Amino acid sequence: MTASLFTSTVFGALVSDPEVSALFEDEAFVAGMVRFEAALAQGEAEAGAIPREAGLALAEAIGGARVDPAALRAGTAVAAIPAPALVAELRAQVPAALGQWLHWGATSQDVVDTAFVLALRDAAALIDARLSTTAGALARLAEAHRRTPMLGRTWAQHATPMSFGLVAAYWLAAVVELRRSALGPEAFPLQLGGAVGDFSAIGPAGLETRARMAEILGLGARTPWHADRLPILKIGGWLTQVSVAFGKIGMDLIALSQSDVGEVRLGSAGGSSTMPQKQNPVGPSTLVALARSAVAAQGTLGQAALHGLQRDGQAWILDWAALPGLALAAGGAARIAEETLAALEPDAARMRANLDAAGAAPLAEAISFALSAHLPRAEAQALVKSAAREAAGGDLIAHLKGRTDAPIDWDRVSDPAQDLGLADALIDEILAAAAEAGLV
Amino acid sequence: MTASLFTSTVFGALVSDPEVSALFEDEAFVAGMVRFEAALAQGEAEAGAIPREAGLALAEAIGGARVDPAALRAGTAVAAIPAPALVAELRAQVPAALGQWLHWGATSQDVVDTAFVLALRDAAALIDARLSTTAGALARLAEAHRRTPMLGRTWAQHATPMSFGLVAAYWLAAVVELRRSALGPEAFPLQLGGAVGDFSAIGPAGLETRARMAEILGLGARTPWHADRLPILKIGGWLTQVSVAFGKIGMDLIALSQSDVGEVRLGSAGGSSTMPQKQNPVGPSTLVALARSAVAAQGTLGQAALHGLQRDGQAWILDWAALPGLALAAGGAARIAEETLAALEPDAARMRANLDAAGAAPLAEAISFALSAHLPRAEAQALVKSAAREAAGGDLIAHLKGRTDAPIDWDRVSDPAQDLGLADALIDEILAAAAEAGLV
Amino acid sequence: MTASLFTSTVFGALVSDPEVSALFEDEAFVAGMVRFEAALAQGEAEAGAIPREAGLALAEAIGGARVDPAALRAGTAVAAIPAPALVAELRAQVPAALGQWLHWGATSQDVVDTAFVLALRDAAALIDARLSTTAGALARLAEAHRRTPMLGRTWAQHATPMSFGLVAAYWLAAVVELRRSALGPEAFPLQLGGAVGDFSAIGPAGLETRARMAEILGLGARTPWHADRLPILKIGGWLTQVSVAFGKIGMDLIALSQSDVGEVRLGSAGGSSTMPQKQNPVGPSTLVALARSAVAAQGTLGQAALHGLQRDGQAWILDWAALPGLALAAGGAARIAEETLAALEPDAARMRANLDAAGAAPLAEAISFALSAHLPRAEAQALVKSAAREAAGGDLIAHLKGRTDAPIDWDRVSDPAQDLGLADALIDEILAAAAEAGLV
Amino acid sequence: MTASLFTSTVFGALVSDPEVSALFEDEAFVAGMVRFEAALAQGEAEAGAIPREAGLALAEAIGGARVDPAALRAGTAVAAIPAPALVAELRAQVPAALGQWLHWGATSQDVVDTAFVLALRDAAALIDARLSTTAGALARLAEAHRRTPMLGRTWAQHATPMSFGLVAAYWLAAVVELRRSALGPEAFPLQLGGAVGDFSAIGPAGLETRARMAEILGLGARTPWHADRLPILKIGGWLTQVSVAFGKIGMDLIALSQSDVGEVRLGSAGGSSTMPQKQNPVGPSTLVALARSAVAAQGTLGQAALHGLQRDGQAWILDWAALPGLALAAGGAARIAEETLAALEPDAARMRANLDAAGAAPLAEAISFALSAHLPRAEAQALVKSAAREAAGGDLIAHLKGRTDAPIDWDRVSDPAQDLGLADALIDEILAAAAEAGLV
Repeated sequence: MTASLFTSTVFGALVSDPEVSALFEDEAFVAGMVRFEAALAQGEAEAGAIPREAGLALAEAIGGARVDPAALRAGTAVAAIPAPALVAELRAQVPAALGQWLHWGATSQDVVDTAFVLALRDAAALIDARLSTTAGALARLAEAHRRTPMLGRTWAQHATPMSFGLVAAYWLAAVVELRRSALGPEAFPLQLGGAVGDFSAIGPAGLETRARMAEILGLGARTPWHADRLPILKIGGWLTQVSVAFGKIGMDLIALSQSDVGEVRLGSAGGSSTMPQKQNPVGPSTLVALARSAVAAQGTLGQAALHGLQRDGQAWILDWAALPGLALAAGGAARIAEETLAALEPDAARMRANLDAAGAAPLAEAISFALSAHLPRAEAQALVKSAAREAAGGDLIAHLKGRTDAPIDWDRVSDPAQDLGLADALIDEILAAAAEAGLV
Repeated sequence: MTASLFTSTVFGALVSDPEVSALFEDEAFVAGMVRFEAALAQGEAEAGAIPREAGLALAEAIGGARVDPAALRAGTAVAAIPAPALVAELRAQVPAALGQWLHWGATSQDVVDTAFVLALRDAAALIDARLSTTAGALARLAEAHRRTPMLGRTWAQHATPMSFGLVAAYWLAAVVELRRSALGPEAFPLQLGGAVGDFSAIGPAGLETRARMAEILGLGARTPWHADRLPILKIGGWLTQVSVAFGKIGMDLIALSQSDVGEVRLGSAGGSSTMPQKQNPVGPSTLVALARSAVAAQGTLGQAALHGLQRDGQAWILDWAALPGLALAAGGAARIAEETLAALEPDAARMRANLDAAGAAPLAEAISFALSAHLPRAEAQALVKSAAREAAGGDLIAHLKGRTDAPIDWDRVSDPAQDLGLADALIDEILAAAAEAGLV
Repeated sequence: MTASLFTSTVFGALVSDPEVSALFEDEAFVAGMVRFEAALAQGEAEAGAIPREAGLALAEAIGGARVDPAALRAGTAVAAIPAPALVAELRAQVPAALGQWLHWGATSQDVVDTAFVLALRDAAALIDARLSTTAGALARLAEAHRRTPMLGRTWAQHATPMSFGLVAAYWLAAVVELRRSALGPEAFPLQLGGAVGDFSAIGPAGLETRARMAEILGLGARTPWHADRLPILKIGGWLTQVSVAFGKIGMDLIALSQSDVGEVRLGSAGGSSTMPQKQNPVGPSTLVALARSAVAAQGTLGQAALHGLQRDGQAWILDWAALPGLALAAGGAARIAEETLAALEPDAARMRANLDAAGAAPLAEAISFALSAHLPRAEAQALVKSAAREAAGGDLIAHLKGRTDAPIDWDRVSDPAQDLGLADALIDEILAAAAEAGLV
Repeated sequence: MTASLFTSTVFGALVSDPEVSALFEDEAFVAGMVRFEAALAQGEAEAGAIPREAGLALAEAIGGARVDPAALRAGTAVAAIPAPALVAELRAQVPAALGQWLHWGATSQDVVDTAFVLALRDAAALIDARLSTTAGALARLAEAHRRTPMLGRTWAQHATPMSFGLVAAYWLAAVVELRRSALGPEAFPLQLGGAVGDFSAIGPAGLETRARMAEILGLGARTPWHADRLPILKIGGWLTQVSVAFGKIGMDLIALSQSDVGEVRLGSAGGSSTMPQKQNPVGPSTLVALARSAVAAQGTLGQAALHGLQRDGQAWILDWAALPGLALAAGGAARIAEETLAALEPDAARMRANLDAAGAAPLAEAISFALSAHLPRAEAQALVKSAAREAAGGDLIAHLKGRTDAPIDWDRVSDPAQDLGLADALIDEILAAAAEAGLV
């Protein structure tokens, strides 16, 4: 259905990462809720909240249960929360004597929140894993093009020459940052607390149950957060940063692959239904679109975090509306970025041709600094500015030679490959950071 | 899949209107694209852009074609746009000699934008139809409770008494406003223009083709808007207003049905997985959540409207990401509001009991105005304020009687049913507006 | 202060329209509240809600009052609403005997909402007036460049040739749309209703007072909307559309003025602090930024529209936070667009040079349609596609000539000026619409 | 000006923290830019990028310079960036011979981004400091009310009894989380890199200059981030979390102080312009409004992070538009939360009265668990549910006694003070975390 591009048969493969998508299938979500109930029975049994033998048997029985998402549809339409229907389904599947201990002392939110966290944790792990491949591709580009000069562009205008390797290294720096701020296990917490978050129905063994369950599920053990959505905001924050970091790379790739620039070629590009020659930047455009929709989803999470008292249906439903889409956007972005960057072909010749066509204007800063060795900086800058205006796209250096006899090495300042600044050192710095982050 | 609540097997029935949802199934979207291609062939044939006989035969052949959304998945993953795959599919299904004229002079955006507009038009019509039923329920509540006094509440504090009928009438006033600003057929425009929007491949009969196609599809004929997304923003604006108007009613219903107030009962309410007595305001909470996510989707549309040059993939994909969800949110909101308001049971006795429990404080304004007939307004207000502080929730009127001998009809000012202001006239005004808008 | 760019001494002149800004100075806002109180006194006097003579005298006295915004600061910090402090200030300035009738039966929201509506109405009028000048500049560009060929660009790739005049006409079409949907006087409604919106303190003359006040203030008379924020959403919707329409033009101008394209020159552009040759697209970039922040402000308004019961402080404060910024963004956008488009210099020679440099690729669609007269369309398209791949940026036409002997007029299909489609007719259509809308 | 509530004379004191506001005055922002230039001169001198003596003298001269924000207004209107005008101003104030070395090799973005970071760092420190006071107040409430029973409320419905101390402790838990994720010095990085971020004009001493400057300014030294806005998103993320955490407390305080609940009293509350008895929850409402606008500002930052190539004017201006408002919202929220919570008066008697009025319904869960010791859990739950329906707000326990002879200690299960779950243990856990975080 086109309600979400991720779920559309038509658009799904364009925007998704299949592995991350699988985590948010209804079946997976329901399986997550079932895992919660099994872990609850086991944890309560081990902690002594319910009879040990019965609880362990129940956990095993739940482990063998299969709940069809369709069975929860009608109940959820009435209750909003799928937990009552889930518990009824499970009760029908476990031995009658054990049903007694099912969902003991937990509340709907414990189940639903934890099921979402399980999916989010796995999604984050998949995304994090892709960062390494992507970083590898970027590190190779940075190394290979350390000394490849291209036009730097600011405000969409030619600025000064720079190294394409440094451009790639800066993309890598963002990936390093994503890895550095990747969330540890404790950032994916179990939710357990019962009706109002005080474990009153689980009883004295509540905190021990929490500890056991967290271990069983591999989640963080934490003060209940049913009405404090900061943990969700933190997860959402990282997923948004992933989407945005790759969206920025998408912006750059659109700009560099546009016909009028042509400095990179995309390994795969989209055709047009009417123009035979078209090569559309499909991957980069999708990255930008995913980033902007991730940002919107993050905003929805923020609004949803204004949760009233001990549970707030309107805010909580809003969480559900925003959270999976955010994970899917980040997942799709990580997959597309990986594929796009692996296939990226920089065109050093076109970079050089564009530099040549731009003439000396991009070198104006370097020239003005070279002149500053011989005349006051302000004068140097004014001289270059007026010569640039006079040359109007023509031969700036000729114009300058006619206006100053400062002993400038004109050949050197005319060579963009001499104007790459500290590209080497910066690339080294970023590669070292990537290595330290375990990315390359 | 939980990517979107609308597409989730578990959550779908909670948030959706099934009829609106059907419009955004992949099958329906693909059928919309096929309808575009059929109308294009017919329109071009009738306008003389392609040979008449062949064109009409092609239109008929396309009308009989069936395209499986799955057949477009791989192509869309590569091209972003489903049109090339669609055209290939259709070409395989129509007589070889006619394939020649298929998609003649159109571009992908013409097909995709028009298919979305067809779905949006039908969604808007379904939503608009529901407004009448909802308005009917509200009009009945307004009539029946013209003189039912309740506590008005501002800033979540007791304000002055007011008529519950007027509360319902104000909800109705918003529905009237939605109907008044409902979009006419011209607001749902055909998109046609070819590669860069100048009909260059369709040729001289382009504008006549546009006119014919608009008639065939029942859409507005309009200057191409491929890169000018104001038409989309307008449609999105109305859908957002629908969601927000019902979200506001949802806010009110949550507030009035909360246990501590209990002045309305919801016909259906959700249970808890652990607390047997719970009656959760599921419908109203869902209305609020849908409203807040509609607002977020509108924001995404706004960001997507910043479309570069003649077509901008990143912005256009963002449109697709936001538009269907917005229609589905409005559709779900209209369905839930209709059901919720039809089943709403105001509890006049509880309203009265709450008024009685509140004592004279809510009458303070009325009393201060009554006193103003006998002493300066500022003095009257100060007198009431200090008496209220003194009474501290006790008997304000006794306190006042002890502090003024102004000849006030204390019984009258103590009766909230005498303090309903112009409820009758305002209810009449709103009912008349509803009638004029064809709603009741 | 940099809290908002509009209020910053440093950034204010970059982003603002001074006239619209003046409307949102604290002095103007307070003056608007004072105008409300004067109109209230006059309207109540004329309608008989308060003694006629006293009321008219009060209105006159209020008209002569001057309230310093600073006098409301402390009171607003405590009460959130500036009305109590305002009433106290006015009471001190009017004859003691008249103070009695001040603010009679109104509530804070009546004053504050109406003061904002007054400013919004005037802002909308200023913005609407600028549309005419802007439309004039665009109409001139459209006329002057009807036959100026340039590269159409979709997905940032060369598409087919098109007319620059048509590009300008499409910008104009959006301005026409803005004018068409400009809000009439009834869209800027007076808010009047008293404490809970039922005129209970004003009394029977409430509706007549409303009618009189609306006339005095030039505002729409309307059912109270204190808790129904659709009127605010509609105003916000138009202001957002203004910002977005100009933001889209900003996107295009950045793309067309980028160094690598250079097809338009901006009359004024910004310099760099270090690069002497830089000409930054300051106006267009600001337009895009204003559009994106207007969209965010619209989203805030949407969230604020979820107003609980008869008044909801948290939602209402949020309205105040978003509304003025939205008007200022639209105002700034209208001013910058007007100036930028008036000074815009298209460079037809560079357009032609870029077309020439692009070779025959942008003509591929036209060629494939020309070939379609001689061989099946699919074959024609495949032939052109493979020739384009083979030519790889080289001479497509030579490659094609070697592969088909279809009798094509190669000179004609090679001339971009012959491939402008229905530019003339579309420009005429848009100019006619602009004339009909009173814009040119 | 009302463009932003923070800058409004009328509304400013309502929403602001004066100390945080001072950081975003134009004067402070300009002073931050001046500090950058001084640190640049000193750092370059010490690193050997410019002549040592001249550089140190220049740094001192800049330190003594005073730049009026108004002097930058005209230049910024043209260039968007205030740096060229700033450099011109400084050049006029330092000895002519030193002007040569001013702004040596830096670009506008280096100055502007760093000036914003300086303000953000100081704002974050002020906000962080307030967390301790707020945590202290919450810790006292948690301790004092460990055993104060109140109604827990979920979905705005009475749930089970709980401890008010635990409610306060959960608020504290969010503050602990804010402190734990408070940003260290490295999160506030210097921006330095020159025109395209490769230090080409500063030269070989660039990285050493960066290190020196970071030390001088107390900022993080980091790979240039001019086009990688993740550092800004991280800062924005924390500020948003601050606003949202206090917004959630605001939601709760509105709900608990509403007239129909009355379980907390706000130390200060706002009056009405017409209703003498009103006590509006001004602080809590402002907290909610600030939170929602912070979320919107974060969204704008996210959109702005999609920065093209080496600098992107439209995105960068958008940063400026959103960033200060976000800091001011967080600052205001921290100040208001501190004041509101310090003055908060829980009303234990009203909590108890509300519990009593609610009857046994909130105890239904506890009763069903008590019954589960004697009959199967599902039967117990069904029994309680049907008894609750039958009792319909009447005496649930009497109804139950009539339907079961299970040996329940009815007195104990009827006492809400016996149904506080693990409140004590949870409060201890949170207090310990607060202590560990250095908050109490």
